Formats: sequence, structure tokens, C-alpha cells
Amino acid sequence: MTQVDSRPSALRGDVFTDDIAIPSQEVWSTYPPTPPTPDQLKLKRTGLTPAERAAALDRLAAYVEYKRDHLLGYQINSDMNGYAEDLSRFLRTHINNIGDPFQDGGLKVNSKVVEQAVLDYFAELWHGKPYVQADKESCWGYSLSMGSTEGNMYALWNARDYLSGRRLLGEEESDQAGALTYASPQDATADNRAYQPVVFYSEDTHYSFNKAVRVLSLPTFGELGRDLYKNECPINNGVWPDEVPSALPETSNPDERYSTFGPGSIDVDKLVVLVDFFARKGHPIIVSLNFGSTFKGAYDPVREVSDRLLPIFHANGLIDREIHYGHGRRTDHRRGFWIHVDGALGAGYVPFLAKAAKEAKYGYNPDAPVPEFDFGLRSRHVPEHGEPVELDMVASIVVSGHKWMGAPVPCGIFATKVKYQMQPPSKPDYIGSLDTTFAGSRNGFSPIVIWDHIAKNPDDRQITQATHAQRMSAYLVDRLVQVEQYRKAKFNEDSLFIDRTPLAITVRFRRPGARLVAKWSLSTVSLRMRPNDDSSIRHIAHVFLMPSTTQEQIDAFTADLYAYDAFDPIEPQSALSRATAVLAETPFVDRGFA
Amino acid sequence: MTQVDSRPSALRGDVFTDDIAIPSQEVWSTYPPTPPTPDQLKLKRTGLTPAERAAALDRLAAYVEYKRDHLLGYQINSDMNGYAEDLSRFLRTHINNIGDPFQDGGLKVNSKVVEQAVLDYFAELWHGKPYVQADKESCWGYSLSMGSTEGNMYALWNARDYLSGRRLLGEEESDQAGALTYASPQDATADNRAYQPVVFYSEDTHYSFNKAVRVLSLPTFGELGRDLYKNECPINNGVWPDEVPSALPETSNPDERYSTFGPGSIDVDKLVVLVDFFARKGHPIIVSLNFGSTFKGAYDPVREVSDRLLPIFHANGLIDREIHYGHGRRTDHRRGFWIHVDGALGAGYVPFLAKAAKEAKYGYNPDAPVPEFDFGLRSRHVPEHGEPVELDMVASIVVSGHKWMGAPVPCGIFATKVKYQMQPPSKPDYIGSLDTTFAGSRNGFSPIVIWDHIAKNPDDRQITQATHAQRMSAYLVDRLVQVEQYRKAKFNEDSLFIDRTPLAITVRFRRPGARLVAKWSLSTVSLRMRPNDDSSIRHIAHVFLMPSTTQEQIDAFTADLYAYDAFDPIEPQSALSRATAVLAETPFVDRGFA
Repeated sequence: MTQVDSRPSALRGDVFTDDIAIPSQEVWSTYPPTPPTPDQLKLKRTGLTPAERAAALDRLAAYVEYKRDHLLGYQINSDMNGYAEDLSRFLRTHINNIGDPFQDGGLKVNSKVVEQAVLDYFAELWHGKPYVQADKESCWGYSLSMGSTEGNMYALWNARDYLSGRRLLGEEESDQAGALTYASPQDATADNRAYQPVVFYSEDTHYSFNKAVRVLSLPTFGELGRDLYKNECPINNGVWPDEVPSALPETSNPDERYSTFGPGSIDVDKLVVLVDFFARKGHPIIVSLNFGSTFKGAYDPVREVSDRLLPIFHANGLIDREIHYGHGRRTDHRRGFWIHVDGALGAGYVPFLAKAAKEAKYGYNPDAPVPEFDFGLRSRHVPEHGEPVELDMVASIVVSGHKWMGAPVPCGIFATKVKYQMQPPSKPDYIGSLDTTFAGSRNGFSPIVIWDHIAKNPDDRQITQATHAQRMSAYLVDRLVQVEQYRKAKFNEDSLFIDRTPLAITVRFRRPGARLVAKWSLSTVSLRMRPNDDSSIRHIAHVFLMPSTTQEQIDAFTADLYAYDAFDPIEPQSALSRATAVLAETPFVDRGFA
Repeated sequence: MTQVDSRPSALRGDVFTDDIAIPSQEVWSTYPPTPPTPDQLKLKRTGLTPAERAAALDRLAAYVEYKRDHLLGYQINSDMNGYAEDLSRFLRTHINNIGDPFQDGGLKVNSKVVEQAVLDYFAELWHGKPYVQADKESCWGYSLSMGSTEGNMYALWNARDYLSGRRLLGEEESDQAGALTYASPQDATADNRAYQPVVFYSEDTHYSFNKAVRVLSLPTFGELGRDLYKNECPINNGVWPDEVPSALPETSNPDERYSTFGPGSIDVDKLVVLVDFFARKGHPIIVSLNFGSTFKGAYDPVREVSDRLLPIFHANGLIDREIHYGHGRRTDHRRGFWIHVDGALGAGYVPFLAKAAKEAKYGYNPDAPVPEFDFGLRSRHVPEHGEPVELDMVASIVVSGHKWMGAPVPCGIFATKVKYQMQPPSKPDYIGSLDTTFAGSRNGFSPIVIWDHIAKNPDDRQITQATHAQRMSAYLVDRLVQVEQYRKAKFNEDSLFIDRTPLAITVRFRRPGARLVAKWSLSTVSLRMRPNDDSSIRHIAHVFLMPSTTQEQIDAFTADLYAYDAFDPIEPQSALSRATAVLAETPFVDRGFA
């Protein structure tokens, strides 16, 4: 991996420059408010006077609203149109959706009926069936309280326990009289690989994935490879990488034949070779795909991955595995693979791009085919011997509520199918009280926000927003090219490294100076573009073009880039600059925003 | 374990009786609103008309507010006084505290300065030091997005990795040039028990703990015992239980010498024997203690547990362990134990009970000594040989924001000390960008709610609220005793099983009929009071006495209990009733509310 630095701007010494905007340079807002100080917010044992409290809250509100209006670097829809007015009455009640969203519980102060409407909406949007308890092919899910990190973690947990064959035993099967217990397959010994799942995701995946697998003690292919199959890696000269390499760019320039120059999607050829290696060894497979990655906004090709992996799954007996639990218990039939789509960003709008591309009236010509990613995706494999196989391939999808749709608090939706649930709802006597979700308490306010957004935004409007973001992305590229030409002519400066992955709603370019990074809340990374070559380090920023991003904001931002000191000078490769270019290969370094 | 049933009321056939309150019986609210129907909330691809949308939201608001005003069974402070008015303006902005609360990041639309004020407040309230990066004894923490489940899970994760000796290697120590990597101790082989932590918690612990250890693949002492030390359990005739037994009641009645009749706190004698067993085997120890348990509102005696475990930790080399990472890397010194306090409920008000008990002016005479639980708790051990040892014992504390304090969304605070953090902030170059929290996105609205609550509630007012809840709990017991006497005289009915653990803010009693359970959102469980004795099954409900619970509500509720049909008849022990008393020993069964 090549990322070298994404320290927050405060640590690069620009904390003092934040918000001391120079009025003569300000085209967007001349008088930025000062943020509240720790001293103003300090809580006393005697409480705060009403005046102190009001002053602190006023200053906080003014500050966050100012920063909201200058937010360009994160995939947040800042349009909270009407929530404060329409939904603030729900702040008068603690609303808690504890437990399964489709089961009533003791706590009646919940919004589960709203949550169900939202889940059914997404099931349909993603070409699945709305939840019906008895229909194993229908979609089950729940509303997330933390955002997509929670959903990704839940998906990996569910996948881990599903693929390792764990099953909830009902009263009649359990050893303990009448108890519900979890059982492992009877042949699940420590060295039986058939129940040792292995995870694959690309190097462009958000760092929270690596955190999730650490929490879950779930091995990535790199860890398992180093552990069990040292030096046998089928790519990379036998050395196991931590993540699946991302795709190379379409260029013949040998200096740029590195994934850092690529679009940010997964290298399917390498993924196929790696999955094949582990499938042959007998491991069940978890593949997590990005759909709107956090830095390049890239889409892993879910269709191509599915089509090419199906024959491997078929050849290695991973389509259907009969699992035995001994003691005369009933057997279970399960797949030996799980494809998860992290659509935190993309699963929110790509369905509308697809609709837009289908009808001339929307006037939308995509710069690349709109990719498939959802429960409607079916792959077909015709083996040399035996019957053809056709399967639905995607097991779970996550989307954030605060990204494409916009919400005051982090939120989102997790969706899977009933057939993959670890607690199959066949015994309502038990299941009603089973907590099938991740947390105990669940935020009951955020489903209302998502519901309200959808209720106010018919398909046609969402299509307009989705195509608007595409247009704005192209517009920003144009404006940046103008900046680049101006600076080349005026200041004799080099390339701005402007780049945009097809269909992405983010544009990346050379990192501006610290003041502008703070002013526009830009997200930045420093990348070693070629491995082990410190002279190839680039400092990159990106801008997300959300439904709330206006042309006016883009104009104001790019106008800022015309200033002489808008960018730091390119650093010579001194010992000092090398020391600051900290190589950080852990997943904890910010690759954007989960 | 003895819990047999806590199915939601809908599954007991009372879904139709919910909200068809009979006006003549209603003393509290004569005209309950009907809840919105799924049909009213169904989302259409064409959006909803403004009238449809308003009608659905109006009905939802009326319904949840009605149910809020009748909420007695859950530990929620329903007083949202002023949030809708004072804080709804923050719904105009997506506020996200992604990353470490004490480190600035790229996303400027955050409320970290508020979060810091809240964390510092709790550090002081819990007798710790506010966060100072360089001070290893100071308190670090963060604001939770999911509520206490997230905090408990994070605590167990941190404890697991800390005790298994994992360490973040800096650039200068890593094998990979310049990379940050996680290292295990050099002697951490698969069968070295020194890095195999084991978890202890009581049978009264909320089911979400069992879910958390499953997510984390962290063995409980029962699992590890069955796996490694079969039939060697030092209690229970050699058979490993799943959880530490709870304390027995102070009674000489042999029929009631079971923990089900007890106060709900952990059996310290048994905990000590169990911990001693595993400490002797060389395992590091994680003990999670309840402080305000979810059903009985009980407090595990943190002081007694700490004092009695310290000699065991001392005798088994768990006070200070030198951990080596090989390759000339620096060694680390760590404890071999971790005491976590799940103070979701109790950590919010017990500090104020302690203050109240100290000063005569508050007129508060506690019915039991107010227990210690926080960072100020120090234990002292004088060994036969060697120097005396005195240590701070509590490693982490969690409190919910929506329980004692009250908040429209689930939230809370996790706190630990800098010395226990897995990413010690000694290298700000790295640490600034490390995500030290659980999620990616973090709710930035809820710290504002907690801040606002504290700002408006000086100590004196919180003391009043805490003692009010104690008074109301005693008042409810009195009223229930009157109901019991009335029903005995009038209907010749038996005991109402009225019980209250000392200092608890919950009172338990015989479960009323389904209509009243739904009307007052009661939380219920069915318990087999004596193991394997179906004739001992009791159906129990409880009421929480929160700061928002008024005497008026208690009067209205207990008035309802005078009705002839307020309780179901005691069921004869027929085959039918046995069948409905489903034994559910999994942790998924609701023991209340996390």
C-alpha cells in the first residue's frame, strides 16, 4: 500500500489558520464566526446560567452552520431541508426500536412501523422482495444507529457465523432440556478449513473494515495466507499482501502502471486468482465490495466479480453444503460464500442513475455503463458436466442515511435475505424475543428522518439529484482544469493531478494549502504513488459533489484556488519532508469517511 | 438459569388489546390515539402528498407521545424538557464527530469541543482526571452512537486486545519499513494461557453481553472451562455454568434459597472462587460488573469484588506483567486484569446519591450504604511477604445518556484511562489520524443533548432527582402493598410477589394482564424460581422510577390494578401452560432493556 499520510490538518500546524479567513480573499462568506471555546463550554457543578448556556449554543450553531456551508470534502448531503421544522417534535420523546424491527416488543415508544416502511422501500429499490417472515427469499434488515460501519460489521459477523456453520438449535434439538443453544457442525474441528471463512476486500476499502475484522477475529486472506500458506501467494511473487490490489490504470506510461494511478476499483483478475486459491483449499469465502469507495468514489464491478467467481464456487462445492450437527439433529443446507456490498454511498443513488439512463426524457448520458450491485443480480454458469447453475449472488447491502440522502445524525440501512439470517424466524415463540440486531437500544428517530426524506422525494426528483451530482462532478473537473492552466501560465506551476473515476461523484486533485483545507473541510491523503519511491509522494485532496453541493459553492471554492498562496510549494525531497511523510500502513489512517 | 419466557406481549395474543382502552377504566388518559398503520406509512415511488405525509407524521407523533406518557417499564427518563425547542436548530446540520474526540480532523462540522466538555465532566464526576494526552492516569473516552451496548462491546474489545498483549508498533519498531503494525507478544503461542483472557459476568447481566462476547470471539469462563478444564469447575459440582451465579437472598426458607429470589447482584464468593481457578491457570481476567442491572436494578459490589480479587491478582502475577515483543523492541508493562463497570443506568445517579447521603440538608437516609464504583476506588493488599500493594481497580465505565439523563436518541459515554488505550497517544504524528473509537461516523448531536442536560441541571438539582426516584420507588412499593391487601380481601388472591432491591429504582411484582402490560409498556419476564420445577414459574413485571416518573402516573397505574381483571388468573400447571412457558436460556431473551 502506498498511502503515506492523512493526518488531520491540525497536526500539520494549521490549527491556527482555521477560520482566520482573510476577508479580501473570501468570496463565499466574509465574516466567518469563531468557534466556541472549551472554556465557554466547560460544565460546572453549579450548572450554567441561561445566558451562558444560550451564548455557548448560539456560537456552536453559528459555527457548525458556517462549516456546513463550506463542507466539500466529505460525502455528506448537507440538505436538512425541513427536518428541524417537521421532525423536531420527535425530540420530545425518546423513541427506541430495541429488538427486531418486524417484531413488536414490550417498549411501545418505538417507530418500528416507520422502520418497516423504509426497509420495504429499500428492498424494492434494490430488486428484492419486501419482508415476509415465511418467505426465505424476502429481504430482512434493520435501521443502523451508528452508520455504515455498524452495518458492515454486522454483515461480516453474520457471514462469519453463517459460513462457519453455526446454527441456533431449538428446544427439541438441544442437549439442555428445552434450551436454545448455538451449535457448531459436528465435523467443525480446529483444522477443518470448511468452517474457516476468509475475507477479501480491496486496498481502496475504508479502514473501518480492517477494524471490523479485528473486532470479529475474522482473518483476511493475507493473514490466513501468512499463517497457513506462507510464501504460496499466487500473486505478488508469493508474498501475501494485506488487501486485494486495486485495478491498474489504462495507461502505457510505465511510471504510472500502479494501482495508485488507477480508478480505485478492485483488480478482478487478482481477486479471482486469490479466491480460487482459498476455495481449492476448502475455505468458505467472504468478499466485500465497495460501491462508491471513500476516497476515489469507485464502484467495484459486482456483476463481473459475481460472474467470474460463480464457476470457482461451483467447482469447489461452495454452492450448496450440507451441514450435519450430529445427535440426530436436522441438517442444514448453506452456501459456502457471501458477497457483501458496502454501498454506504453508491447504493443510495446508483439505482436512480440506472433509471435515468433508461429513459431519454432525463437527458442523461452516463460516461460509463451504470453498474449493477443489488439483490436482482443473478449469475449463470454452464459447467462442462452437469446442469447449468443460476444464482442470486449478493447476500447483504449497506447504505448510509447521512451521505446521499442527508440526515442530521449518522444512520443507515442494513439489508440481507431471510435465508441468511442466523436466527431463522421459524419459531415465533422464541424469535419474537430474540434480538436479531447488533445493539440493544436502537435509534428510533433516524428511521423517521429517512422515511421523511423518501416521502418528500419521489423517484423523478431523486433522478434529478443523481444526474445533478454527475453534472457537478464534470463541472468541477472543468473548473479545476482552468485553475491548472491559469497557474501554469501565471506561476509556472506543475500539474494539479486532477482525476475522476467514471461515474464517481468525487474529484481528486493536488492538496491546497492548510488554510483552504480547513476552510472547505477537505479530506486529504498523501500517497506514495510508486512503492518505495519517496520522490513519488503526492498530497491529494478530494471534493464530493452531493445533492446539496451548489454551483455557487464550486465557483467560490475554485476562485480560492487562484490565489498565489492557494497551494504549498512542492517540497523538495529533503530529509525533513521525508520525515513528515509518515508511512502509515495500518487501517487506522483515514482514507476518507465511513 | 431460570428465566423461562419474556416474549413480547404481541406474541401472547394481546396485540389486539393494545390501545383499545376502555374509557371507564381509564384514569390517566381517556382517549388514546390510534397508532399509524403500515398502509399510512407505505412509501411510494411517487412520494407522498404533503397531506398524506403530514397525516402520517401527526399520527405517529400523537401515538409515541401518548405511549411516552404511559411508559413505566423501561429505564428511560422521558423528560425531554426543552430539547425540541433549544436544540432542534442542530437538526439543520449533519454533525459528525468521526475519529478521536480529542483530535481535530478534516471534517470541521463536528461538536468535539462539546464532547470534550462532557467527557471531562464525567471524568470528574467519577473521581478521575480530565483528559490530558501526556498523563497516563487521566481519563480518555468518547460519546457513544448506539448506547451502552456499543460501550460495553468497546470495553470488552479493548480489554481483550490489552490483555492478550497486542501492541501497536511504531515506525521504528516495525518489520515493514516505516509501517504501523500490530504485534503479539513473542511468547504468544496458541497454548500460552497468559494471553488467553477469560470473561466473568453474572447471570443477571443483560443479554447484550453474551452477544458482545460472541461477536468478539471472547470466551466466557464457562466456555473456556468446558473446553479446557472439563468437569473441574470449583462450584456447581464440577459443571461449568454459563454465567457467575447471582447472590442468594437473606432468607432461611429453603424454598426460597435460590438466586432468583435474591437481590440480583453477583455472588462475590462464587466469583472469587472462579476467578482464582483461572488466575492460577495463568489466564488474564476480565470482570464485568453491573451497576444498576436491567431487571432488578441491582448493583454488583464493585468495592468488595475489587478488594477480594486484588490478592488473587497479586498472588498470580497479574498486577504487572512485562511483555516482550522480540527483535530488540521495547517491552511493555501491563496488568493482567480488567474490571469493567456497566453503569448504563447507575453510573448516572449513584454519584448524586452519594453526595446526598453526605449532607444532612438533603434529608436523605439511604436504605443501604451508597456503593462505590468508579475511578476513585482503590484497593489495598498487604501480602504476607513483600510490600503492600495499592491500586486503582476500575478500568472502564459506561453510562447511557437516554436512561437517567434522558435523550431523544440512544446515546452514552465510554470512559477508560489513557494507560489502557490500545493506541497510546505518545506519537501525535500517527495518533492524530488513528481512529480510536468503535465506529467511523459518530453522532455529533447526542453530545450536545447530554451537554445541555448537564448545563441545565446543577448538582443540587440532580441530587433532588436522584432522591426523588428513591422516594418514588418506596412509594410504589407502598401502593402495591395496598393493592395486594385489597385483592386478598376482595378477590381472595395470593401474593403479588412485590420486591425491591435496596437502592434500586425499579420495583418488581406479579405481571398484570396483557392489556395493562401494553398500556404501561411494562417489561416482563417469566422465571422458573426453582431449577427444574415448573410449578415454581412466576410471571414478573417491573416498573422503573425515573426522574420523569410522577406520583400521578404511579397513582394512575396502581389504580388500574384494582380492577377485577387486572391480573390473569394463576394458571394451573397444565400441559398447555407448560408448553407456553418456553425455556429460553440463550442470551437473546430480553432481560430488560440495554
